[in-house]
Amino acid sequence: MPPLRTALLQSSGRAGSVDDNLAALDAAAARAAAAGARLLVCPELFLTGYAIGDAVPELAEPADGPAARAVADICVRHGLAVHYGYPERAGEAVFNAAQLIGPDGTPLANYRKTHLFGSFEEKWFTPGVRPVVQAELDGVRVGLLICYDVEFPENVRAHALAGTELLLVPTALMHPFPFVAEAVVPVRAFESQLYIAYVNRAGVEGEFDFTGLSCLAGPDGTVRARAGRGEELLVGEVDPALLATSRAVNPYLRDRLPGLYGSLV
Amino acid sequence: MPPLRTALLQSSGRAGSVDDNLAALDAAAARAAAAGARLLVCPELFLTGYAIGDAVPELAEPADGPAARAVADICVRHGLAVHYGYPERAGEAVFNAAQLIGPDGTPLANYRKTHLFGSFEEKWFTPGVRPVVQAELDGVRVGLLICYDVEFPENVRAHALAGTELLLVPTALMHPFPFVAEAVVPVRAFESQLYIAYVNRAGVEGEFDFTGLSCLAGPDGTVRARAGRGEELLVGEVDPALLATSRAVNPYLRDRLPGLYGSLV
Repeated sequence: MPPLRTALLQSSGRAGSVDDNLAALDAAAARAAAAGARLLVCPELFLTGYAIGDAVPELAEPADGPAARAVADICVRHGLAVHYGYPERAGEAVFNAAQLIGPDGTPLANYRKTHLFGSFEEKWFTPGVRPVVQAELDGVRVGLLICYDVEFPENVRAHALAGTELLLVPTALMHPFPFVAEAVVPVRAFESQLYIAYVNRAGVEGEFDFTGLSCLAGPDGTVRARAGRGEELLVGEVDPALLATSRAVNPYLRDRLPGLYGSLV
Repeated sequence: MPPLRTALLQSSGRAGSVDDNLAALDAAAARAAAAGARLLVCPELFLTGYAIGDAVPELAEPADGPAARAVADICVRHGLAVHYGYPERAGEAVFNAAQLIGPDGTPLANYRKTHLFGSFEEKWFTPGVRPVVQAELDGVRVGLLICYDVEFPENVRAHALAGTELLLVPTALMHPFPFVAEAVVPVRAFESQLYIAYVNRAGVEGEFDFTGLSCLAGPDGTVRARAGRGEELLVGEVDPALLATSRAVNPYLRDRLPGLYGSLV
């Protein structure tokens, strides 16, 4: 199977302006497609901005709302899949969600963040209850988590056990936690033997100072692509052959002893 | 509570010679005590050497055998606890074990490696079945794992949930896995909010090329002390106050959602 060329859009867009962020996404999709990417991953809540406080309820949209249709149009126009974070409206509830739409405009999967972070998120969002959400893209099993979720090894392990090969993690990692981007994410990829596309916001937004440092981490412990602190479009390859080799050399999934882990649940 | 000053003996001793290794341990205990340490941690199978192949059954001793008595004598003489790896004889079975003996010569805990690594260990050792073994030392809750065990986040998490504050990990980490010492161990300490004393062998021994790089990793993501590739005695502090601060800033143990982790067991 050929590698899946994957683009990571490190950007904060413009807080509160869905139109501006859809325009930024369209431009990034054009660049990603020109670089040969079949998948473009955006940060957490990219559609609306993260520091939008009281605007969360009014900017939230259903998974099949107008913004989703606009993203689907971008996918079709540029011939690549897009994964984007957004506040999802579902009746009275609002979730911190991320949706993957395929190159033909078909929604492939929608994930609701289970592990909310801090008082801002706890105030505005309902936690999701489904730990493992997956889709198939060009023969690669893709899994979805958001930000704080990936800091818990349990969540990544559950994905690996369910067959995830590439984990997409839109994030909003802020000061003073660069250790998460620099160290935790590569170790998650290694210990559970999968790729992780960790895509962050950048710069100051309201009270938050985002760290950038987005990365595509490989299962062999190497970081295949790494951003700096500012806005950036990264491109890297997710290679099923490298994954197979790495899993043979690092047989964590085979050697684990689930019978000893009862205290974790 | 005052910090627990901890010494890490990175050394391969002399393969096959228990007498030489007890002498090396005695000398290291003298240096560690002079540096104010209350605890000295040795590598995996330090008592006998790691690359001893066919000699495993004959060099294996019960947990209360003559070598344990010799180590207890070293503890009393230098006024510090010693944790050492050794092949443990228990009837027909031989375990890859490590024992903690207190400053007064009292055995405090004995751990049998549960996650054996590679064909050498699988040939000679029976896996242990008790995932969490702990002891109390100067008011610090100490937990025991060995080498490959720590590479599984489940094992470290089980310790954190059981109250472990300092995890002692004798190891025999070899080429080409320096990523484990450099990245995985500090992330384990951070994600489960505890200290880890990871103590490796050094240099070439039989078919193995040990990487050194022992470290005392802190719960805040910093490495408090780090060895190079050769023989070395490291000393660092395990500080309950720093641990409490770090747990408040990084509330992973509070924020985890065990109800979502059912697939891990």
